[in-house]
Amino acid sequence: MNRTQLGDAPAPFPPRIAVLPRPTPELTTAISRGGGVTVADPAEADGVVVDFALDPMDLDTELRTLDRSGVRWVQLPRSGVDLFLPAIVRRPDLTWTSAKGCYAESVAEHALTLVLALLRDVPERARAACWGEPSGRSLHGSRAVVVGAGGVGLETVRLLKCFSSHVTVVRRRPIDVVTADRTLGVDELPEALADADIVIVAAALTSRTRTLLGQREFQCLGPNAILVNIARGELIDTDALVSALEAGQLAGVGLDVTDPEPLPHDHRLWRHPRALITPHTADTMAMRLPRFAERVTENVQRFGHHRPLTGAVDTAAGY
Amino acid sequence: MNRTQLGDAPAPFPPRIAVLPRPTPELTTAISRGGGVTVADPAEADGVVVDFALDPMDLDTELRTLDRSGVRWVQLPRSGVDLFLPAIVRRPDLTWTSAKGCYAESVAEHALTLVLALLRDVPERARAACWGEPSGRSLHGSRAVVVGAGGVGLETVRLLKCFSSHVTVVRRRPIDVVTADRTLGVDELPEALADADIVIVAAALTSRTRTLLGQREFQCLGPNAILVNIARGELIDTDALVSALEAGQLAGVGLDVTDPEPLPHDHRLWRHPRALITPHTADTMAMRLPRFAERVTENVQRFGHHRPLTGAVDTAAGY
Repeated sequence: MNRTQLGDAPAPFPPRIAVLPRPTPELTTAISRGGGVTVADPAEADGVVVDFALDPMDLDTELRTLDRSGVRWVQLPRSGVDLFLPAIVRRPDLTWTSAKGCYAESVAEHALTLVLALLRDVPERARAACWGEPSGRSLHGSRAVVVGAGGVGLETVRLLKCFSSHVTVVRRRPIDVVTADRTLGVDELPEALADADIVIVAAALTSRTRTLLGQREFQCLGPNAILVNIARGELIDTDALVSALEAGQLAGVGLDVTDPEPLPHDHRLWRHPRALITPHTADTMAMRLPRFAERVTENVQRFGHHRPLTGAVDTAAGY
Repeated sequence: MNRTQLGDAPAPFPPRIAVLPRPTPELTTAISRGGGVTVADPAEADGVVVDFALDPMDLDTELRTLDRSGVRWVQLPRSGVDLFLPAIVRRPDLTWTSAKGCYAESVAEHALTLVLALLRDVPERARAACWGEPSGRSLHGSRAVVVGAGGVGLETVRLLKCFSSHVTVVRRRPIDVVTADRTLGVDELPEALADADIVIVAAALTSRTRTLLGQREFQCLGPNAILVNIARGELIDTDALVSALEAGQLAGVGLDVTDPEPLPHDHRLWRHPRALITPHTADTMAMRLPRFAERVTENVQRFGHHRPLTGAVDTAAGY
C-alpha cells in the first residue's frame, strides 16, 4: 500500500506520534511522510516510535509513565522483540509492531556471505601469506537447511535458490514455505540436520527456541556441515558448539551473534581456525536506519487510516 | 539438445575419440554416453579430447604427430584457450571447442564470494581475535561493473541481480546484455568505473585485453570501490594495482588469479590488509571434472550427428 493506492486521501485524523528517547530529523520526516505529526510529550501521543537510541531495558519504565495516556500503538526498532518483552508482557492491550522484515535483505545477505566464505575457505585464505593448495566447495547443488521462516529466513531461502541449492525450511508453524524444496516441523530438526551441507539459523529467540541447537543436534550433523547463525546467540549452546567443532562433528561455523555477546576476548572460538565471527554486523546501523524510517512511514500511514499495521507482534508467541 | 530430443536415433557414425594424454574412466564413460568410442591411438581418431592432465605446452607437439591423420575436432578442457593458442593458430583448419560456459556457475559464485567478503570486511574479521566495531556495506543497491560478457560474466550478472545491484556490463561486441541495467563498450570503461562500487573482471585474455586495468583505470575508481578478478591475472597490471591500493585509490581487491601466478611468497599483495587472494580456486578440479565430462558427452553426440558443437573457439578472436 502506498499513498497513491489510497488516492492521496487525507488521513481521517493526523496521528500524534512521540519518539523515544527523543525525535530525530530522520524519524520526524518519516512520521510526516506517513501523514502524522511528531509530538514532544509522549503523554499527548496516540502512538510511540521507539528509536534505536532507547535502551530496551528502559522501555518498560518509560511506558509506565504513559499508562493513563492515549497511547495505543508502539513501534519497536528491531526485528527481534525479546529485549522488549517485559514491556510487551505487561501491556498486551497495546498494539505492538516490530521492524520484522525490514532488515531481512541485509541480514540474509550476511548469512550468504558467511556460508560462501566458509565453503570457499576464505578465513584460511585471508590469513595466508603464500599461495595454497586448491580446496573449497560450491554452494550450487548443496543441501541447505534454514531454521525459521520469518522475513530473514524467507529471504535466505530466496538467495540460496539463486545458487540452485536444495533448501529445507524448519519452522514451528505447520505451513509449507512454497519457495523451499521441503518444509519440516521443529520436531523433525534432527532429520533435517542429518544430510545438511549448510545450516542457517534464522529463528526468533523465544523460551522454546533457546539452545535449539545443542549437543544432540550437533551429533546429527555430518563432518562436512557448515553452521551459520545470524539470528540470536542464545539459539545455540555455545559450549556444545565449541566441543562439536573441536571433535570435528562439523566443518565450520559462521557467527554474527554469540552467547555471550560480545564474545569475550579469551574465548576459545576466537582461536578455532574454522570459526568465522562477525560482531553483529549483518545489519549495521547505517544499513538499518533508512529501512526503519520507511517502516515508520508505512505504519504511521496505516495507523492513521485504521488499517492493520505491518510487523504486528504476536504478544503470546513472543515474536 | 539431449538424446531424447534426437529421438534416440543412433549416430550416423560412432565417432572415434582419442583422449590426450590418455583416457580416464570418467571421460571414456562420457564419450560412450555421447555415442562415441574411445580409441587408444590418436592417429585413428576423428576427434581428440584434451584432458586437464595434458600440459598445454605439449599440445602442439602432440598434434604435430597427427597432422596427416583424420582428426577434425579438438575439445579443450578449459574455458580460456590462451594457453593452447600455439596449436590453435597453427591448425585453424581444425574445429576447436573450449569448455567455455561449463564452469561459469562455480566461477561466478566465487566472484560473489570475494565481493561479499570484501564488502562485509570478512578478511579483517577472519584475522581478528576479539570483538570489533560495526562496519561493512551491503551489496543490495550497489553499483556493479562486470567486464566481459562470456559465460562467467553473464552468470555473474545474474547473481548480482539476485542482490538487487545496478549492473553495468562492459564488453567488446556492441550487443546489449538484456539482463544487465546497462551495456557499454570497452572504450567506455573509464566512464563505467567512475561510479562503480564493485568491479568484477570476467573477460577473456587476449592481446587486446592484456592489462586492461592499469594505472589510468585505477585513477577512475572511487576510494570505496572494490575490484575482483576471477578471469586471468594478466588482465590487471599488478604493479599499478599495488600502487593504487597503497594510495587508497580503491578500497579492496579480491584476486583468484594473479600476475605472476602463483603470486610469489614475498609479494607485497600478501601483506596488504585489503587484498584477499585465493589460489585459482574459483573452480577446483573437483568442481570441474563432472562439468567437463557433461560437455564431452554433449559434443561427442553433436559431432556424431554433424551438428554445431558447443563452445566453438573463434580462432581469429582467440576465445
